[in-house]
Amino acid sequence: MSEKHLQTGDALPPYGGKLRLFAMRFCPYAERTVLVMNAKNLQYDTVFVNLDHKPEWLLNYSPKGTVPALEYEEGKGIFDSNIINFYLDEKYPDVPLQSTDPLRRAEDKIIVELFAGVQSAFYTAAYNSQALQPNMVDTYHKGLEGLQDTLRARGTKFLHGETPGLVDYTLFPFLERFEALPLVGKPEFELVKSKYELLVNYIEAMKVVPAVKLYYLSPETHAKFIESRNKGDANYNMLDTSSVCCMRPRKKKE
Amino acid sequence: MSEKHLQTGDALPPYGGKLRLFAMRFCPYAERTVLVMNAKNLQYDTVFVNLDHKPEWLLNYSPKGTVPALEYEEGKGIFDSNIINFYLDEKYPDVPLQSTDPLRRAEDKIIVELFAGVQSAFYTAAYNSQALQPNMVDTYHKGLEGLQDTLRARGTKFLHGETPGLVDYTLFPFLERFEALPLVGKPEFELVKSKYELLVNYIEAMKVVPAVKLYYLSPETHAKFIESRNKGDANYNMLDTSSVCCMRPRKKKE
Repeated sequence: MSEKHLQTGDALPPYGGKLRLFAMRFCPYAERTVLVMNAKNLQYDTVFVNLDHKPEWLLNYSPKGTVPALEYEEGKGIFDSNIINFYLDEKYPDVPLQSTDPLRRAEDKIIVELFAGVQSAFYTAAYNSQALQPNMVDTYHKGLEGLQDTLRARGTKFLHGETPGLVDYTLFPFLERFEALPLVGKPEFELVKSKYELLVNYIEAMKVVPAVKLYYLSPETHAKFIESRNKGDANYNMLDTSSVCCMRPRKKKE
Repeated sequence: MSEKHLQTGDALPPYGGKLRLFAMRFCPYAERTVLVMNAKNLQYDTVFVNLDHKPEWLLNYSPKGTVPALEYEEGKGIFDSNIINFYLDEKYPDVPLQSTDPLRRAEDKIIVELFAGVQSAFYTAAYNSQALQPNMVDTYHKGLEGLQDTLRARGTKFLHGETPGLVDYTLFPFLERFEALPLVGKPEFELVKSKYELLVNYIEAMKVVPAVKLYYLSPETHAKFIESRNKGDANYNMLDTSSVCCMRPRKKKE
């Protein structure tokens, strides 16, 4: 798998018979689905796309042109990380990622819903920092304090239980990126260990979960992408080492 | 049940031992849950609240102060129409409102997701009409054409099937309100029968479904509420006939 992002004019690679995920390497929403597919040990192909110059065929799978989109059958897609992830959990129940209790499932969704303000503050801080207001910093920290309180109240290693579930894989892609904010000049978004001990330990525990570890990127890498996007030239292919890195097969010389 | 909306300073009525729904009579999101509870023949109490002067206790059930919120157990609430409705469908499965097929369930969610642009155009037209742009009128009609195409492709009386399901009860509260737009000076939002025959027939069929009929309000009534809200004094209690109407028990004279 190359991490090159296909763009306008590029051909859709031939369908390989597996589930196929349309993603962008630095998109936290797409990461949600990657983590769920990894957790469920699903076999899938990935097609990365350039969101500034979208390939024409993306709209066949995702009418709004967003990622993730899942090609569940040749030529047929569904989109939206939450819709895809609930679909995957229902369609491939061998590794169940939700509680069997309807109330607990509702509570997990409420955790995600209450996290929306935190996500929104992150996006403003990272990509629209001239619009950043002090109340957004407050929203961010109040949301994270609430999340830490929930972790404490549940008393389990992960929000789902002793192993992560849908709720954990839904929040983690954002938590992973929050550590990049102090590196792009936003120290007020740091998760200071003394205040967020339980939450920081949870984040560290998530990082070593196999489904996450396979796809995790460092704060420095996220910061580099954020900075490239803010300069107006998002560097989608900064991890594409497909033809140069000794860890992957080199392209054969013609 | 009085349709009086409780406000800041008003006491929370005593808990009656049933499910209790916090709603606002003209809120389409709250209506989604009312319809689902009606369709499932659930016994419940309703507490209407004034959203401009919220009672203090609303936040105990809905941390963002939104409706609907559901008191599922004394003093304990969940909020958000979608979260509540999926919870109700899972918790009270006797009248199932979703397909058993994971893909069909995902497709139903996609219908709702694609409808978000239509809803948003409606809200701008109704409540923020100085911000209305021609592209929003386009978004509205493209969304409704897409919905009509889906109805045609499914070939069933309702989106869910021969009886309505979660997807129908989720969209209908908005469709019910769209007919009010021409009455408040927005003729470009009319669902012209020649163009929307299938969709209009679907809306008419929904209006006579028992779960809907019990709560349905006419376009004139919705228009009256929209106009009162735009004048800065939302007339929450315009339907409160609890002490005057001969159809309900009058208050006893002191």
